[in-house]
Amino acid sequence: MRFTIKRDEFLKVLNSSGKAVNSKVVYPALSNFKLELTEEGLFVTGSNESITIQSSVPFEKNGVQLIRNYKEGAVLINARILLEIVRKTESEELTLDVVDTTIATIADNDSEYKLNCIRAEEYMDVDLDADGEHLVMTSADFALMVEQTEFAASVKEQRPVLTAINLEAADGQLTAIATDSARMSKKVLNISPDVNFVANIPAKVMREVRGLVEGEPSIEISVSNKKALFKFGRTVVAAVFVAGEYPNTRNVVPRVLNYIFEVNATELLKAIDKANILSIDRENIVELSMSETEVTVSAKSSQVGSSVQRISTFRYEGEPFRILFNSLFVSSAVKALGSEDVVFGFVSEMKSFVIKNVGDESIVQVVTPARPY
Amino acid sequence: MRFTIKRDEFLKVLNSSGKAVNSKVVYPALSNFKLELTEEGLFVTGSNESITIQSSVPFEKNGVQLIRNYKEGAVLINARILLEIVRKTESEELTLDVVDTTIATIADNDSEYKLNCIRAEEYMDVDLDADGEHLVMTSADFALMVEQTEFAASVKEQRPVLTAINLEAADGQLTAIATDSARMSKKVLNISPDVNFVANIPAKVMREVRGLVEGEPSIEISVSNKKALFKFGRTVVAAVFVAGEYPNTRNVVPRVLNYIFEVNATELLKAIDKANILSIDRENIVELSMSETEVTVSAKSSQVGSSVQRISTFRYEGEPFRILFNSLFVSSAVKALGSEDVVFGFVSEMKSFVIKNVGDESIVQVVTPARPY
Repeated sequence: MRFTIKRDEFLKVLNSSGKAVNSKVVYPALSNFKLELTEEGLFVTGSNESITIQSSVPFEKNGVQLIRNYKEGAVLINARILLEIVRKTESEELTLDVVDTTIATIADNDSEYKLNCIRAEEYMDVDLDADGEHLVMTSADFALMVEQTEFAASVKEQRPVLTAINLEAADGQLTAIATDSARMSKKVLNISPDVNFVANIPAKVMREVRGLVEGEPSIEISVSNKKALFKFGRTVVAAVFVAGEYPNTRNVVPRVLNYIFEVNATELLKAIDKANILSIDRENIVELSMSETEVTVSAKSSQVGSSVQRISTFRYEGEPFRILFNSLFVSSAVKALGSEDVVFGFVSEMKSFVIKNVGDESIVQVVTPARPY
Repeated sequence: MRFTIKRDEFLKVLNSSGKAVNSKVVYPALSNFKLELTEEGLFVTGSNESITIQSSVPFEKNGVQLIRNYKEGAVLINARILLEIVRKTESEELTLDVVDTTIATIADNDSEYKLNCIRAEEYMDVDLDADGEHLVMTSADFALMVEQTEFAASVKEQRPVLTAINLEAADGQLTAIATDSARMSKKVLNISPDVNFVANIPAKVMREVRGLVEGEPSIEISVSNKKALFKFGRTVVAAVFVAGEYPNTRNVVPRVLNYIFEVNATELLKAIDKANILSIDRENIVELSMSETEVTVSAKSSQVGSSVQRISTFRYEGEPFRILFNSLFVSSAVKALGSEDVVFGFVSEMKSFVIKNVGDESIVQVVTPARPY
């Protein structure tokens, strides 16, 4: 195998596929990129068993030759080292040449690297076939769906299935749910009624795809009973499902709300952030206290002291009501709504409450309150 | 004690004095700021036993009133909490009021904090008298002296004295030396001939002072037999010496140089950085190989491969010569010289070599080579 390639294009695909490579792999060949030069261009694959990313560079784009002087073939090269070499190369082009099956040279004007490499056959089998059910959506819709939900997924491995986003296509709706059991995000989008699937896709895979899809117009999601596949531009991402049954969240969103509080999101976020300085004894727990005339966010620490922040831009009607919550849960939920004004709906002091975007019914955030002192 | 103060001015002094406060103090009162309102203004002191920083805000500056509505007094308040409160305050002014000796309130338009506080008498005695020998220099000279030497001080605590910068005033010269025993930086400045002192000042204190002095025209250094004091603007920094005898470095800089190599600093730094990707078996060890026609920087790893970087802008006369060194030592020394071209002077493969700024004799860097393979 041999090719001379535009450095920027090479770096772009190495960066994309490199997102799947990490140093904690069980299977040693996966610390490498698989490079394949075929009659369609250069294909770069990176994988860590749970996610596989393949990106490619065509020979030519918009009349500009990106790859020249090439010979077909395939090889495995240490991913970290290759990425660092290309990142630090400043010349416009570089040439990779597999001298025999064990040595590859990489050269530009001033540098020559000789890298030990491995036969492509040593790489694990990668299944990038788009089988199962298919769904196409705009990248913007996909990105927003991920941003509005992924933060609520668990980062702890005790219940692995909670580290996933539960994606369900049924009855003309795509529903994305993330929960760590103390809070939940639920996003619903309209889709074609003949697509049906359920998949628990790792939230970190969804985050990676959300990053990679940027700049592409659309994304195709294919779900079989073994894997999910994301295709966009010249990149394919395959994700293995998280094992386990996703909890039933059908009755998590409360329906009858007794206290409604509408507030400017920016002002609320600032007040929470400032009150939070004093939430030391019970980490991040603050109190929201509402009446028709005054709304405050407060926190106290027996050791250090207490704080009270007054909110000026709000609408609240009804009996005075107060509730304690984890300020980080509420802040991330409010930010994810991406709206100037947000509406809180409370049932009672000890019941989960909802936070919604005033102008967008497709997304709802649910947070469990903290116990009173 | 009570005062209403411009938020930006208050934050500035808390930030300065806060640099001395850390959570690892033995003496619990030192997790607090000492705030003193006297007839000269507000004084804020922070300390961690080895460094004490006191900054102050006057009642008025350039005709603008900075502090109003005040009552003299002193109090200790948790430094981390107070700093965070003032940092997150967006209003132009805030009011601090010590209600009795145990509670202070801090309020702006929308917020009120009640903080537990401690009597000022609980703070340790702080000696900020400028006794001993005195030296005034421009802040720019001081900053450059620190930047060009501090990185060579040791970060390990095995030989504490090597974590200091050795500062000696004698015979009309101020000499700053830093060494971790594998490399040395030496800076010499001309000063008044009647100042005489030797002091081992923690390199991290020198770094802090270098940061704080920015924007001030000059700095006064006072050295007694117990401490060093740095005065600039409205800030005073007191530093305790590092115990132990500083090693004799008189004969470290080699005099007779057999191989002279002049090179463009930027090009050399890039070549070292790129070669370094392959310095895996012996971490950061690269080889510099010079002849009249070709200069290369190379590295090799039995596991991964090898690299060769060619340098194009250089001057070298004499027999071919090659030497191995720690690339981080050489890179930081070259950067510290701050010059477009640098000159290396070598004695032999196993002897320390010097790196100098072509246009500035006041600074010299010395590096011990690595053993050949």
